[in-house]
Amino acid sequence: MTLETENSTEVEVKTGIDADVRTNGYKHFAEISPFENSSKEFGIEVLSDVGDKISIQTRLSGSIKDWICETSAETVFSKGRIQIDAGEKLVVEKRSFVKTSRDLVSSSDNDLRDIEKLSFEELLGENNKVWEKRWEDSDVVLNGNNYAQRALRVSLYHLLRAHVPNDSRVAIDAKGYAGEAYWGRFFWDTEMYLLPFFTATAPEKARTLVDFRVQSLEGAKQNAKRYGYNGARYAWESDSQGIDCCPNWQYGDHEVHITADVVYGLSYFAHATGDLDYLKDKASEVILETAKYWMERIDINTKTKQPVLLGVMGPDEYKAISNNNFYTNLMVKFALETAASIAKEKKAPESEWRAYEKTAEMLPLLKREDGLYLQCEGFDDLAEPQFEVLWKDRSKPFAAQVSQERLYRSKCLKQADVLMAMYLFPSRFSNEELQKAWDYYLPYTTHDSSLSTAIHAILACRLGKMDESWKFWMTSCGIDLDGGAAEGIHIAGAGGNWLVVVFGYAGLLSPLESETLTFNPRIPEQLQSIEFPLCWRNAKVRGKMSKNIVRIENKGETEIDVTVWTKTKSIKGAEAISWEL
Amino acid sequence: MTLETENSTEVEVKTGIDADVRTNGYKHFAEISPFENSSKEFGIEVLSDVGDKISIQTRLSGSIKDWICETSAETVFSKGRIQIDAGEKLVVEKRSFVKTSRDLVSSSDNDLRDIEKLSFEELLGENNKVWEKRWEDSDVVLNGNNYAQRALRVSLYHLLRAHVPNDSRVAIDAKGYAGEAYWGRFFWDTEMYLLPFFTATAPEKARTLVDFRVQSLEGAKQNAKRYGYNGARYAWESDSQGIDCCPNWQYGDHEVHITADVVYGLSYFAHATGDLDYLKDKASEVILETAKYWMERIDINTKTKQPVLLGVMGPDEYKAISNNNFYTNLMVKFALETAASIAKEKKAPESEWRAYEKTAEMLPLLKREDGLYLQCEGFDDLAEPQFEVLWKDRSKPFAAQVSQERLYRSKCLKQADVLMAMYLFPSRFSNEELQKAWDYYLPYTTHDSSLSTAIHAILACRLGKMDESWKFWMTSCGIDLDGGAAEGIHIAGAGGNWLVVVFGYAGLLSPLESETLTFNPRIPEQLQSIEFPLCWRNAKVRGKMSKNIVRIENKGETEIDVTVWTKTKSIKGAEAISWEL
Repeated sequence: MTLETENSTEVEVKTGIDADVRTNGYKHFAEISPFENSSKEFGIEVLSDVGDKISIQTRLSGSIKDWICETSAETVFSKGRIQIDAGEKLVVEKRSFVKTSRDLVSSSDNDLRDIEKLSFEELLGENNKVWEKRWEDSDVVLNGNNYAQRALRVSLYHLLRAHVPNDSRVAIDAKGYAGEAYWGRFFWDTEMYLLPFFTATAPEKARTLVDFRVQSLEGAKQNAKRYGYNGARYAWESDSQGIDCCPNWQYGDHEVHITADVVYGLSYFAHATGDLDYLKDKASEVILETAKYWMERIDINTKTKQPVLLGVMGPDEYKAISNNNFYTNLMVKFALETAASIAKEKKAPESEWRAYEKTAEMLPLLKREDGLYLQCEGFDDLAEPQFEVLWKDRSKPFAAQVSQERLYRSKCLKQADVLMAMYLFPSRFSNEELQKAWDYYLPYTTHDSSLSTAIHAILACRLGKMDESWKFWMTSCGIDLDGGAAEGIHIAGAGGNWLVVVFGYAGLLSPLESETLTFNPRIPEQLQSIEFPLCWRNAKVRGKMSKNIVRIENKGETEIDVTVWTKTKSIKGAEAISWEL
Repeated sequence: MTLETENSTEVEVKTGIDADVRTNGYKHFAEISPFENSSKEFGIEVLSDVGDKISIQTRLSGSIKDWICETSAETVFSKGRIQIDAGEKLVVEKRSFVKTSRDLVSSSDNDLRDIEKLSFEELLGENNKVWEKRWEDSDVVLNGNNYAQRALRVSLYHLLRAHVPNDSRVAIDAKGYAGEAYWGRFFWDTEMYLLPFFTATAPEKARTLVDFRVQSLEGAKQNAKRYGYNGARYAWESDSQGIDCCPNWQYGDHEVHITADVVYGLSYFAHATGDLDYLKDKASEVILETAKYWMERIDINTKTKQPVLLGVMGPDEYKAISNNNFYTNLMVKFALETAASIAKEKKAPESEWRAYEKTAEMLPLLKREDGLYLQCEGFDDLAEPQFEVLWKDRSKPFAAQVSQERLYRSKCLKQADVLMAMYLFPSRFSNEELQKAWDYYLPYTTHDSSLSTAIHAILACRLGKMDESWKFWMTSCGIDLDGGAAEGIHIAGAGGNWLVVVFGYAGLLSPLESETLTFNPRIPEQLQSIEFPLCWRNAKVRGKMSKNIVRIENKGETEIDVTVWTKTKSIKGAEAISWEL
């Protein structure tokens, strides 16, 4: 801080640390120890309720004199009161050094003295270098629309900020560490909305997210046990140990798709990075233990002898306890298919992987005679939601205007459910099936969840409905920007905003469904072009796409194949190739 | 209290009032004012958190001297310490007078002085007179089985004790005012398990129970409004204003049958007492307002155009959110039939009562092709409960040994559901239908609820399964006697124990289904005979029934018809007639 004055004046400068920090009113600090080495060097050490230690050490320097330091039970403050004469320049520098017992690089011997010789500019430069690299790896350039560019960069900033480098003991919590809602817990957001961005821009960061699920397997086993099952059951709201902390039983008990989503995430990571050994090695226990859980959780219908998955909540959380939810069944099929192949590779008894294969094959995806995939049993016998009568204020969620009881018996959707499944596995469904589901479910969909509009933007794009796609994307981009960030950042929405550009407009095919890097781009008319970096298996490319031309630059050294709208071309290392559309 | 001693000794006597009284830890007293008129006359006045005043005034008399009185913020105690010589006799009398701002007979001017001239024996005599009358009106004599006799009398005692005479501002709470569980709230127990006993033994007491629902209509209207409906919606857990206080949404939101149960209760009372004007007059608003609610709560299936009742919990609370629950639909049919007839009588527009009639007629009772009535849609597609594997300790509820999630997706029943409906409306179902339901549901029924076994005892009796009936009844009789009363009395179970004798063994037909007083008795071999008093419309009878002979004494003055196993006889006033079986 630099102080200058035109007229002589007296200034008080006060700075310090206040350890009275609470989460939703709860105090996590068991012990707080302020300390004072001198009036200009002080700090606080705290011991958290789970035994972690955090210390902040602060030193002041500069030309203000007469500092005094005051400590109380939970604070330490230093202040100086000084006369500045006209034209005089006062510089105050405050340096803080934070270390914790959870630091991956042990800093027990380090302190402020280690950065003593570095100037403020040198320290700032170190920080800038890290951020420059982050932006280089991930920035998406949207030419022709400043609002969209700004909105997307806000999303990217929060994604980059919220990831904890090298630390697989945590993922990214629902509010991107920027708010107290959900108490910092981890949801399916990780796999569905965050992992693709990190896999595509910084695979080493994606790895900490999937490793987080591997390291919290023990918690998932405890969850399974608590519910009376063998195997592993991932938490709807996971703490860092994997234990389910969901305060409302309807989600914690019934939103079981998370356990399949985790396997989807592991598989997505392995295929997107090309590290297929990850599934056989580190992730295999997760895949096999969750399969064990599914085999007990799935019932056999006594009349039809078919496997069924009863009493679940899908992504549409407005159907609390439904049977054979489309999304959940499809994800469980995928998880069991994955488990069968791992069990086979691991030379497990044939009966085991055959059972996984058979259950995956027989678990139903309900389809009406007219070809519509049904969200769950009896979905089309539910009540009409009567939006025109009951949803009076469209600026507020439908759920805020009707009782939960009505939500639970009505056809209203909170977010994509059948459509979410179709978004994830496009090659399993025809365009006609997608169109039918779109036409049926969209009028019933409230988009009350911040996770909804990005997925709809991508699917609208696939169906060639570019105006609708743009509208959905703009809604998604506005969630935090337009006043929704009061309780923290909707970090899944931030990831979703990136998904729209790369899986929607650039039309990237899922690494789970395509060996070759493939784009089917549709650039909305609101944009002149999009530019983005992308990691794909071992390759690294940079794409630039406009309505008429697609240019892919191979940023690596090895030749790669790239397909754009069915035309495959090879690109040598450090070269670029274009497609005219 | 009388003290005598063989050897001289010193005795301390201490007595007083402690107003530190809490309900589940919650303190209902806003102000506590102990007072002391003299060392032998003191008391406490309290003001409750809802503005009620309660005062207790106590006076000591007797030969102990040297009393001193001590008050603290919430207590007042008086004590004396005195030497008693051998052979001496000390008598201490403590008289207390309680008055409250809720007293129906204003006692503002009364106090201890009004009973000054009455001796202890006279006061005790007054109390005894009240209790003699109560027992005379209601005692059931069971010859031949002491355990059953004792158990039933315990139940009758608690029923008689828990009813608050002349006060329709309250009903009888779930724990019979003998425990803190459920916070003193009122459930469907009132209509289903308590009302028949009081109607049959003390109609003026039954009247306060139905009047309670009439006076709490305003609360029911508020409940409806809160859920987004017009009309009246009775509370699953009602406070004295009728407001729903249920802390768990699955019951409060979905166990909507209570609103129809209330109408059933009103109608039951009117038919059993013969006061049919009650329905047209006092109860009519309840009947019509609840019908208004049902007409909004019922949906029309878009495919079949049939009325359906979606998202409900029936008496079997292990199916949290089910569609077209058998019991609920039957009760709603009954409620709408009742509303139609009242609306017709009240000259409401024809369209209104026609709509009630049509909805009542079309609301489905699901029946399988093999004739089984289904508890709800898809019930027989639910998971097998696997009792043999999962219910290891049969001395504890099934629900205590598996997760709620498993309960909710399995065929296990907490208590009678289809069978409960058949118990209430026997003439609507054939014996074959009852038998089929019995055979299907009983193996799935856990009887985890204390409300279950009494109903099964009655139905077993109807099916001629007397041994099963007895076993179920004995289980029901043992609920509180054998250690279940820790949290209060299962007052509905107490009512159920009486139901078994009168509706089971004596085989009384429901006043809703029979104009004539009719018995189809089946006396279990564990009893020689049963004797009971009974009010029926304007008549009063006393029945004595053994395996071979039924004797009915007309305790009134007017001749009445009585049917026993299809043989109808007239009994003149003050006469008795027998049937040989």
